[in-house]
Amino acid sequence: MPHPVPPPLLIRGGTIQTADTTSRGDVLIRDGVIAAIGRDLEAPTGVGIVDAGGLLVMPGGIDPHTHMEMPFMGEVSTDDFRTGTEAALSGGTTMIVDFAIPSPGGSLVEAWRVWSERAAKAVCDYSFHVCVTHWSDSVAGEMATLVRDHGVNSFKHFMAYKGALMVDDGVLLESVGHALSLGALCNVHAENGDAVAHLQKALLASGVRGPEGHALSRPPAVEGEAAQRIIAIADLLGAPIYIVHVSTKDATDAIARARAGGQRVFGEVLAQHLVVDESVYASGDFGSVAAHVMSPPFRPKSHQAALWAGLASGQLQTTASDHCCFCAPQKAKGRDDFTLIPNGTAGVEDRMSVLWHHGVRTGRLTPAEFVSITSTNTAKIFNIHPRKGAVSVGSDADLVLWDPDGSRTISARTHHQRVDFNVYEGMQVTGLARSTITGGRLAWHDGALRTVSGTGRYISRPPFAPICFPARA
Amino acid sequence: MPHPVPPPLLIRGGTIQTADTTSRGDVLIRDGVIAAIGRDLEAPTGVGIVDAGGLLVMPGGIDPHTHMEMPFMGEVSTDDFRTGTEAALSGGTTMIVDFAIPSPGGSLVEAWRVWSERAAKAVCDYSFHVCVTHWSDSVAGEMATLVRDHGVNSFKHFMAYKGALMVDDGVLLESVGHALSLGALCNVHAENGDAVAHLQKALLASGVRGPEGHALSRPPAVEGEAAQRIIAIADLLGAPIYIVHVSTKDATDAIARARAGGQRVFGEVLAQHLVVDESVYASGDFGSVAAHVMSPPFRPKSHQAALWAGLASGQLQTTASDHCCFCAPQKAKGRDDFTLIPNGTAGVEDRMSVLWHHGVRTGRLTPAEFVSITSTNTAKIFNIHPRKGAVSVGSDADLVLWDPDGSRTISARTHHQRVDFNVYEGMQVTGLARSTITGGRLAWHDGALRTVSGTGRYISRPPFAPICFPARA
Amino acid sequence: MPHPVPPPLLIRGGTIQTADTTSRGDVLIRDGVIAAIGRDLEAPTGVGIVDAGGLLVMPGGIDPHTHMEMPFMGEVSTDDFRTGTEAALSGGTTMIVDFAIPSPGGSLVEAWRVWSERAAKAVCDYSFHVCVTHWSDSVAGEMATLVRDHGVNSFKHFMAYKGALMVDDGVLLESVGHALSLGALCNVHAENGDAVAHLQKALLASGVRGPEGHALSRPPAVEGEAAQRIIAIADLLGAPIYIVHVSTKDATDAIARARAGGQRVFGEVLAQHLVVDESVYASGDFGSVAAHVMSPPFRPKSHQAALWAGLASGQLQTTASDHCCFCAPQKAKGRDDFTLIPNGTAGVEDRMSVLWHHGVRTGRLTPAEFVSITSTNTAKIFNIHPRKGAVSVGSDADLVLWDPDGSRTISARTHHQRVDFNVYEGMQVTGLARSTITGGRLAWHDGALRTVSGTGRYISRPPFAPICFPARA
Amino acid sequence: MPHPVPPPLLIRGGTIQTADTTSRGDVLIRDGVIAAIGRDLEAPTGVGIVDAGGLLVMPGGIDPHTHMEMPFMGEVSTDDFRTGTEAALSGGTTMIVDFAIPSPGGSLVEAWRVWSERAAKAVCDYSFHVCVTHWSDSVAGEMATLVRDHGVNSFKHFMAYKGALMVDDGVLLESVGHALSLGALCNVHAENGDAVAHLQKALLASGVRGPEGHALSRPPAVEGEAAQRIIAIADLLGAPIYIVHVSTKDATDAIARARAGGQRVFGEVLAQHLVVDESVYASGDFGSVAAHVMSPPFRPKSHQAALWAGLASGQLQTTASDHCCFCAPQKAKGRDDFTLIPNGTAGVEDRMSVLWHHGVRTGRLTPAEFVSITSTNTAKIFNIHPRKGAVSVGSDADLVLWDPDGSRTISARTHHQRVDFNVYEGMQVTGLARSTITGGRLAWHDGALRTVSGTGRYISRPPFAPICFPARA
Repeated sequence: MPHPVPPPLLIRGGTIQTADTTSRGDVLIRDGVIAAIGRDLEAPTGVGIVDAGGLLVMPGGIDPHTHMEMPFMGEVSTDDFRTGTEAALSGGTTMIVDFAIPSPGGSLVEAWRVWSERAAKAVCDYSFHVCVTHWSDSVAGEMATLVRDHGVNSFKHFMAYKGALMVDDGVLLESVGHALSLGALCNVHAENGDAVAHLQKALLASGVRGPEGHALSRPPAVEGEAAQRIIAIADLLGAPIYIVHVSTKDATDAIARARAGGQRVFGEVLAQHLVVDESVYASGDFGSVAAHVMSPPFRPKSHQAALWAGLASGQLQTTASDHCCFCAPQKAKGRDDFTLIPNGTAGVEDRMSVLWHHGVRTGRLTPAEFVSITSTNTAKIFNIHPRKGAVSVGSDADLVLWDPDGSRTISARTHHQRVDFNVYEGMQVTGLARSTITGGRLAWHDGALRTVSGTGRYISRPPFAPICFPARA
Repeated sequence: MPHPVPPPLLIRGGTIQTADTTSRGDVLIRDGVIAAIGRDLEAPTGVGIVDAGGLLVMPGGIDPHTHMEMPFMGEVSTDDFRTGTEAALSGGTTMIVDFAIPSPGGSLVEAWRVWSERAAKAVCDYSFHVCVTHWSDSVAGEMATLVRDHGVNSFKHFMAYKGALMVDDGVLLESVGHALSLGALCNVHAENGDAVAHLQKALLASGVRGPEGHALSRPPAVEGEAAQRIIAIADLLGAPIYIVHVSTKDATDAIARARAGGQRVFGEVLAQHLVVDESVYASGDFGSVAAHVMSPPFRPKSHQAALWAGLASGQLQTTASDHCCFCAPQKAKGRDDFTLIPNGTAGVEDRMSVLWHHGVRTGRLTPAEFVSITSTNTAKIFNIHPRKGAVSVGSDADLVLWDPDGSRTISARTHHQRVDFNVYEGMQVTGLARSTITGGRLAWHDGALRTVSGTGRYISRPPFAPICFPARA
Repeated sequence: MPHPVPPPLLIRGGTIQTADTTSRGDVLIRDGVIAAIGRDLEAPTGVGIVDAGGLLVMPGGIDPHTHMEMPFMGEVSTDDFRTGTEAALSGGTTMIVDFAIPSPGGSLVEAWRVWSERAAKAVCDYSFHVCVTHWSDSVAGEMATLVRDHGVNSFKHFMAYKGALMVDDGVLLESVGHALSLGALCNVHAENGDAVAHLQKALLASGVRGPEGHALSRPPAVEGEAAQRIIAIADLLGAPIYIVHVSTKDATDAIARARAGGQRVFGEVLAQHLVVDESVYASGDFGSVAAHVMSPPFRPKSHQAALWAGLASGQLQTTASDHCCFCAPQKAKGRDDFTLIPNGTAGVEDRMSVLWHHGVRTGRLTPAEFVSITSTNTAKIFNIHPRKGAVSVGSDADLVLWDPDGSRTISARTHHQRVDFNVYEGMQVTGLARSTITGGRLAWHDGALRTVSGTGRYISRPPFAPICFPARA
Repeated sequence: MPHPVPPPLLIRGGTIQTADTTSRGDVLIRDGVIAAIGRDLEAPTGVGIVDAGGLLVMPGGIDPHTHMEMPFMGEVSTDDFRTGTEAALSGGTTMIVDFAIPSPGGSLVEAWRVWSERAAKAVCDYSFHVCVTHWSDSVAGEMATLVRDHGVNSFKHFMAYKGALMVDDGVLLESVGHALSLGALCNVHAENGDAVAHLQKALLASGVRGPEGHALSRPPAVEGEAAQRIIAIADLLGAPIYIVHVSTKDATDAIARARAGGQRVFGEVLAQHLVVDESVYASGDFGSVAAHVMSPPFRPKSHQAALWAGLASGQLQTTASDHCCFCAPQKAKGRDDFTLIPNGTAGVEDRMSVLWHHGVRTGRLTPAEFVSITSTNTAKIFNIHPRKGAVSVGSDADLVLWDPDGSRTISARTHHQRVDFNVYEGMQVTGLARSTITGGRLAWHDGALRTVSGTGRYISRPPFAPICFPARA
């Protein structure tokens, strides 16, 4: 049963900040889309009015990388599509792209169906990258089906997680080549899984069993190597490629070199990697160290400057959270063997505040660049722009009213994420979502959520995004 | 006497292509600005209607680098502000930024006044970079005056032309530092003037006097060196910098390295350098070779891929023409000594067609990227966006109705530029301006110019462009 | 039955050119080793005298990469250890390092034995790299045995030849790590075998079956990728690595980056790749094109400058021939399917002349650098210096008397290689071996071979070469 | 009056370590040169015997960069040629190359004469680079005279010290070009003097007057810029170039890029920069901070890895001390204005121990590489090899008997340098000179100096060093 159309809203007196321009103006929303933009718009009868005085009216954030209620390493991530999207909205994010992962050797379409069912309770819009974890004619056929019938234009591949999700170069070549013919973009988790497995084995054999072993088993070169490899594979095929969670100078440099050679390579950065570094693994406290176990791990601080510059210079285009929550009892599974600690940290809620505080307020990024990397670039790369990622007439009314001067202190005690830890614990950030509007609904306002289960919609994404597949005559 | 306000126009049925989005819609122009954008706009009474069916409605091109009626090397460039801007409009360009150059040791404000008078006859909008060719307290004061009172936010410096326009590192440090404090952006012609002078002398001494000596006296390393130097100087001062007419892989790489280190460095490319290479200097025909004498000169073909990739990857942001016409009799001045050939080629008319044909139709650039590099990025960098470089309500009605499939053959016999040579002679290009609208006036339509002297306006440019000077908290 | 000790020789009046110095002096050889070096040495009774007036007395060349009588792709390479080493001597090369390749899943020690038997007829000294083509505890044990008991300090790995010799990253990690513990250096053929297989399949499917398909199936990125990968693997393990037949700027750059980061990475270049380019694949003549089929294939000419500069700057250290002869009837096997053409070209005879002519006479290399890259560096890397690669008292008397001004024209009609094709056919080179002395025997003199089957000896190479394994306190 | 020929010496039982090889053997010295090398050499009658058991017999160090008794910034450096060369010998260095600096606008030949007189009291061999600080036909003529008649093959240029020693690009082009024709190598101090002057002025204006201002006025980009510039200038001229005291990753990268492009560029590193970093400027103690004032200044620690890797990979070739002593009262001259602090630190005595301890014992360098970078490469680049930098028959008997396991603690209280400060104060190093032999004289033995004033000789250096000027046919 479809949700009723939300009543009209008028956002008044704000500064409209897009990836392109800064301007004063009101925004009128009707039927969930932006109906008008202009100075001193007339308020239609019955319209709800939101005062945006002193606020920036921006496209809602799009988080291109989340894992809600995902079965992984014997556990299920704790935020489901309801709680996870509520957390997103409270932080100014109005859409997520999650990952549908087939069972070993299983059907991609079936995975898409399973994830669609799980996501039905979402309170903001969503879509799915679908993972390719093996290769066969049937996989190729299902990719075509997903593109044609299910609005999927991106497929994910893992170069890590040997023995589980990892695919080898042969599969990558097949899949990236096939996706190219379908007009779909391949995403890649770039870590050399053979190397990780080798180092894990060596560390365990040498007696390193604690969580500090996690980062030792995945040093920067593990990521740099895989990034260079997938870039070379894409180059051989003439395909665009999108590398998720770039965390190292090594991978950033590889992307920049490829782009300087004319390749269409895109890179995504997690807000976590921009501000948290490997020193978190040195505390000796299992709980805290394990809570920071994610892949790629936190890095030596020197890598952060490269990531920031990559975003500012346009060599890295998007930011994400890789939101994947596991609580302390789940993390404890790996108390005696770091390879068993479920990988993942939360972040869907805080991404935008962290980027504003550490990016815009430091002068590293302009407000327009902030919108680009939190929303618009993702919309373009995954071909849902200007429906998403824009403040323009006809666009979905997914907006955040951003208070550039409002401050808050991040804490697991107060966040909306269903997890007992926050990697930004205690960080005071300036820049926060005063109100968040999703599909024309005011879903977060004055610190309170007003969501209705299932108001989020699945967003179909057509193939052949112009930014990835520029036309040749 | 101000020109009368142009009558309203309705552009109907086009595809609006901006740097950001592609969408169908009509554009209503009133009082020289865009009054409304939307599907099936009502035609107000008395409105002129332009049919844009099958056409792209784009922001008019902005050429950030022209030299109209410039005294140089004992000659005056032949296109004046009237003929030059007519040529611009015929090619889809609706604004130029020219250069006001003080006399040796002379006043910058006076130069600005002289150029303002010359430009009064322009038929599209214009602005001026002002050149800093020496240093003194008075120069510093005049820079402040130009920024405060005359709408100048950019200053140009020559690292070449020893004994004439060239400034040394000491002046660059003073000027770039002072401009930073004023919120102005420095432009730099990056060639090592000492090296050019040395090589010129050596070539002449060795008997090379013909025009082929020109390129030999300015090899790629001459530009690469100067680019690295000005980037280092800007880095020391924490200032943004804009390098004009980047023609080499060397300089492109230097810019990319700086950006990867977090610097705000911008690079401009001439359309000429993207498609014409050094082989033009080998013909042995004085007239043809001399006609190609410009600085930087045409390069080995291998450099072009780096320039294209620089534009596509966002490491180079703008394109220009360095339009500076000298006719055969003027070029002949250097028949016996290549150092006396007036430097310059035409190009303001053909830039956009050349970029569409060789950029968009080859798949190197998307249409959105085309708009970025021909117009929007320039508007942002020189802080006149969204007045210029945008199709948005309130923006100046500077638009081009682009026929992506229309073809024409470039020739000096048919072009509107007042010069007897065209470096693109005989090139058939697909993609051309069907109509060009400047300040709400339909000035080029169906192959005919309809311009009125002096309808072009001087455009003030405020300091502290957000893209160059991101705010710190 | 051991060969009799050769009679003493006195090389008189030459210029002794080593990797280190140029000096005038005589060289006295006794019992196959250098007994004295000095000005105007006394001639002992009964000594043979070789006049080296006008000649350079240099360490004989060492070719670190040959394949004599190798079974490969259903054929056996045509030069055997007798004919191949004769060809080597005629060109000034006095030692080869060949490759012992186990049968699929077979014993490494057994392979070493098989090759030892084949090589018994060699007329110059030789040694073997042993190939690791799969992994097991038994392989690990055999590696230790070979190092301890058989004088092997280098193991070879193929990242190409999928389904045959190729090993994956897991095996590479095991083998490189194990070799490190043994003090052995791993050699790697760096081409991504998955990519080659994919491209071969795609080319055949698209109807490209002719020999020109060979290069298309192995573009530069295939090598660049693999080079970066093995460098990353070595970095993770802290192991030195040696990349054979580097043919691209991509791989050269990867090596230079690694070395600039402090890694011990070595690169070998084939003389062929320095002077022959991909244009040879365009002739349309099956015989000629197939004769040039080798892996890596010939490259666009632009790569050659990077290789030369790599050698001159010390980033690439050795030169080789990858001598592997197949005659026209063998090459014809792949007439209808380029993937069946046996890969390989000859070159052991001409390497030194080609390098002298194109390297030293052009000023790219000094004579000392010539000795380094043809002999001394190889001796150091494979830990047989100063027994080999040196002109010093106690060193083996493996010497070439080089005529820097003598010219010859290379041709299959006159060469000593047992093959019907020469990639340098018709090339006139200046710089040639007037006399070659191996183990104190004058084996090539005045254009005539004077060899005796089996006078070549197997050279044991001890582990832990100081250049690869610098000592830590 | 010439000194008497020293009596013969036999160095017995050592391990001879050169840049090329490691071998056991005795060394017989007669008439100041090496007369024989071999196992178990007979001791001639009356020979002095030095027991080298457990020691390495290596070429004595050559320090290519010292400033003894140099007038500079109103002071004279405190070590004179006697005390300075004694300190050198005590540390294992047997030759220095100092700098003859003309008075402003003065004669180069005269400067050479002045320095020759000062150096007459030296106790080890020496030579002079001669500085070019202005340009005229007379300078050009004097350069030719110095090369032809005075054994000078290297000229030094300062890109820093504006208003004093600095030359601009015009002079550099003239001088480097002229030196090329003479077969001489240009040395360059690469810091942008305009930038230094600008930053000094800005710092003083902002109230920074203390010695910490020194490093702030010369950040890494100041050196990186100048290195790139001189490399470009050399490239334009086709000349080799030698950059002194490379202290940054920026300059190291610039050198590596140039070499990868085929240029002959050499880089020198000071031992100080390898192990001391910018943290020394943070102490707040004037005396200590001022004592560390040298140019280039100490750098952020992150640069050191690039320098070490540059040496190990062969991209940087030599090490030096830039020995230039000023005592506390001299340094105090700049108490209220850091620009007046005489620049310089000591180091000629400790260079070799510091490099052995931090280079060889850490595994960064092999013993052969140690010899290369402390001695042999310098001898080759400045064309005095194998007279210097070698252990070979006929070479000068400049040798150090190195105890690789001996330890000492560096301190100004015990060093032989005539200065009251040591930047390595308190550093315990393993690896020291047990005995040092210069010109066949045992000048340092068992911790005691046995020197005689004036036994050092001026070393003529012929032009056209093969390593810098490879011959073309």
